[in-house]
Amino acid sequence: MATVLGFMLAARRSEMQGLIALELTCELVGGISRLVHALQRERGFSNMYLSARAERFRQPLDQLTSDSRGLEQSVRRGFNRMDPETGRGADKARLFNRIALVLHGLDGLACLRRRVRDQALSPQESTRAFTRVIGGLLAVVFEAADTSVDPDITRCLVALFNFMQGKELAGLERATGVAGFASGLFDLEQLERLQYLGEGQQRCFAIFCDYADKPALNAWHQLCTDPVEAEIARLRLVAARSLPGQPLEASLGEPWFELTTRRIDAMKQVEDLLTERLQQLCQQKIRQAQADLDNHRCLLERLDQFDDASDPPETRLFNVQATELDGAPGDTMGQQLNRSVLDLLHEQNQRLQMLAEELDNARSSLNERKLIERAKGVLMSRHGLDEEASYRILQNAAMERSQRLADVAQAVLSLADLMPNASTRVKAG
Amino acid sequence: MATVLGFMLAARRSEMQGLIALELTCELVGGISRLVHALQRERGFSNMYLSARAERFRQPLDQLTSDSRGLEQSVRRGFNRMDPETGRGADKARLFNRIALVLHGLDGLACLRRRVRDQALSPQESTRAFTRVIGGLLAVVFEAADTSVDPDITRCLVALFNFMQGKELAGLERATGVAGFASGLFDLEQLERLQYLGEGQQRCFAIFCDYADKPALNAWHQLCTDPVEAEIARLRLVAARSLPGQPLEASLGEPWFELTTRRIDAMKQVEDLLTERLQQLCQQKIRQAQADLDNHRCLLERLDQFDDASDPPETRLFNVQATELDGAPGDTMGQQLNRSVLDLLHEQNQRLQMLAEELDNARSSLNERKLIERAKGVLMSRHGLDEEASYRILQNAAMERSQRLADVAQAVLSLADLMPNASTRVKAG
Repeated sequence: MATVLGFMLAARRSEMQGLIALELTCELVGGISRLVHALQRERGFSNMYLSARAERFRQPLDQLTSDSRGLEQSVRRGFNRMDPETGRGADKARLFNRIALVLHGLDGLACLRRRVRDQALSPQESTRAFTRVIGGLLAVVFEAADTSVDPDITRCLVALFNFMQGKELAGLERATGVAGFASGLFDLEQLERLQYLGEGQQRCFAIFCDYADKPALNAWHQLCTDPVEAEIARLRLVAARSLPGQPLEASLGEPWFELTTRRIDAMKQVEDLLTERLQQLCQQKIRQAQADLDNHRCLLERLDQFDDASDPPETRLFNVQATELDGAPGDTMGQQLNRSVLDLLHEQNQRLQMLAEELDNARSSLNERKLIERAKGVLMSRHGLDEEASYRILQNAAMERSQRLADVAQAVLSLADLMPNASTRVKAG
Repeated sequence: MATVLGFMLAARRSEMQGLIALELTCELVGGISRLVHALQRERGFSNMYLSARAERFRQPLDQLTSDSRGLEQSVRRGFNRMDPETGRGADKARLFNRIALVLHGLDGLACLRRRVRDQALSPQESTRAFTRVIGGLLAVVFEAADTSVDPDITRCLVALFNFMQGKELAGLERATGVAGFASGLFDLEQLERLQYLGEGQQRCFAIFCDYADKPALNAWHQLCTDPVEAEIARLRLVAARSLPGQPLEASLGEPWFELTTRRIDAMKQVEDLLTERLQQLCQQKIRQAQADLDNHRCLLERLDQFDDASDPPETRLFNVQATELDGAPGDTMGQQLNRSVLDLLHEQNQRLQMLAEELDNARSSLNERKLIERAKGVLMSRHGLDEEASYRILQNAAMERSQRLADVAQAVLSLADLMPNASTRVKAG
């Protein structure tokens, strides 16, 4: 039977179940962070192996593959635990669909690895294939951030997603640098790409800094002041100042790879702080929700006791707000308890409203990201541009008008809605 | 085991389950619409009964009470069907908490009705008590609109919520008019209240017009051009042009009550069109999702068949996008099917993203409403104003600066965040 107290408890239980499901998602995100790191290392080494055609890279590459495989199994176990039957609504549908895409990518890795060992594809092709799988994994982290039910956890997931994305761009920068430095020159496309990847990292790490907690921020600032950072900056300048197609010192390939690898490995430590924080937050929130639920049960029991006993307890247990006509008639204590239930319901109501607002705020950077991605998509499909060129158009427009990137993206989308005739659809890569 | 196709189907099933849960909510909303209408009639008659102290109103009042009770039972059955155990997350928690508040209000109706019959309270007190219960029911409809998983259904729920809210303001206008016309004069507070209620109706019906479908809009325009509307407008003018405290013709009470009752009953017909449309939309969406799910299952079976059979089917069943490295190696047909799965996943992905955006758009008016309600709450708690006065301050500021009401509300809230010291909390009424 539907009762006030039944639904009051159901509300708290729903919150609790939401947090428990979120904890599972956060565990999965931790596993994804580790797998992405392993795949990034494997991608980097595969790239070296294919560029240098050096058999001495074969043994460490096999080791990295084996690491990736182990972490892949743990992510797959995380997927298995997700119980697709309990999902409801489009939020879950998006997450499940993302997971299906990830699984599709992971299923294809065996074939990719065989071709790498057969030297049957170019470093660029190999990088692209790994990048697609990593992109799919990052999309799962984005979905997790976008559907988290707790503002603090959302903030932590937003920080983590942006950090992972920044680290992924750092990985692509490493690969582009390896290709250039190893071949002894950069072509125009590679130079533009390096610039794009550098700017992308700045944006991602800026958002990370807005959302991360103190320990992660400190670790990040430490990393930024490390001598490795300065040496990488010097090599970036060597590349940036070279003329397209003009030969460089070919011996810079390995130092670039080693330095950027050290940087990326150091980034992993910041990431680990974030995933630890995520677990702590989940546990803390669940403890809190459990305590609230226990308090509610306690109130329920008191109401029951009062129904049974003839003497009302002497102490006033709850704060009483006298509002006319709320509550059924009865003796004073019953009325007091009844009103304290009403107070509690109003308090819950306000708390849940606040929670929803804080969630919206925590998600704002995700929404801006979605806008920018969609605007890029429109430019790519309608004008046949690639991702970098589309991004540059948005960025130039934003600088010219002193507008935020998200506002320019919104303008592009509004314009596209007005002219829906050019409707070539984008295939996500 | 986590497989591509398993999660692909799970995604579609999640959407399906979300729609089925939404259909249940929409049925409940239909029941709430009927109960609110009955309670509005009962409130109006209770008001008449208490104002006129006329025993001839007793019998029709008892009939209206009996109608309300019947509809209350059906709403309670709707709550019972909701199965609080399946809810997860803060969205459901908000809904359940709202329902707990509604049940608290419904439980108090027996006492209220007894006091009305004992003439033990003023018409204003009775109206306030009924209004609180109706407000709680409207909040459930708001929550339903805010958590609906389909953009078209959200639009319909937004239209319905605003229409119900407008109709509720029309009911309060009726009560305020009855109080004034029956007592033979309006005091300043009543005159200001009539103006507030009139403007509130305009806002609500304007949003309704933005979101409603053709049949409901047509019915609404017909209602607006009905002679009853002109007669009510004339009586509104009589009140508005009277000086505060100056006697009127006392005989206008009953014509006002009858005309406004006819108007509100006519509104109920528009509302019925909206709730019917809601049911149709739910059924249509579920049919569509079912067909999609069947198509997916069909693809799955074909993949299975292909795994068994040695001869690949002769026709090309699916569109093939040749992208390098997607898909495991194998014979051509297997690769084609594999790629068609990838296409399907990317399509789903895009569709779900679009759905999320459309949902955001459909919810925009709800978000504006939340902003305005919160800003009113801040003004009420910090400056000890009542709801009408707070609204008027927002409205005047918006007119002076030629800004939207939501923007002014946002400014008030930002300012309040900067000065959190004056932290008297609002008790929701």
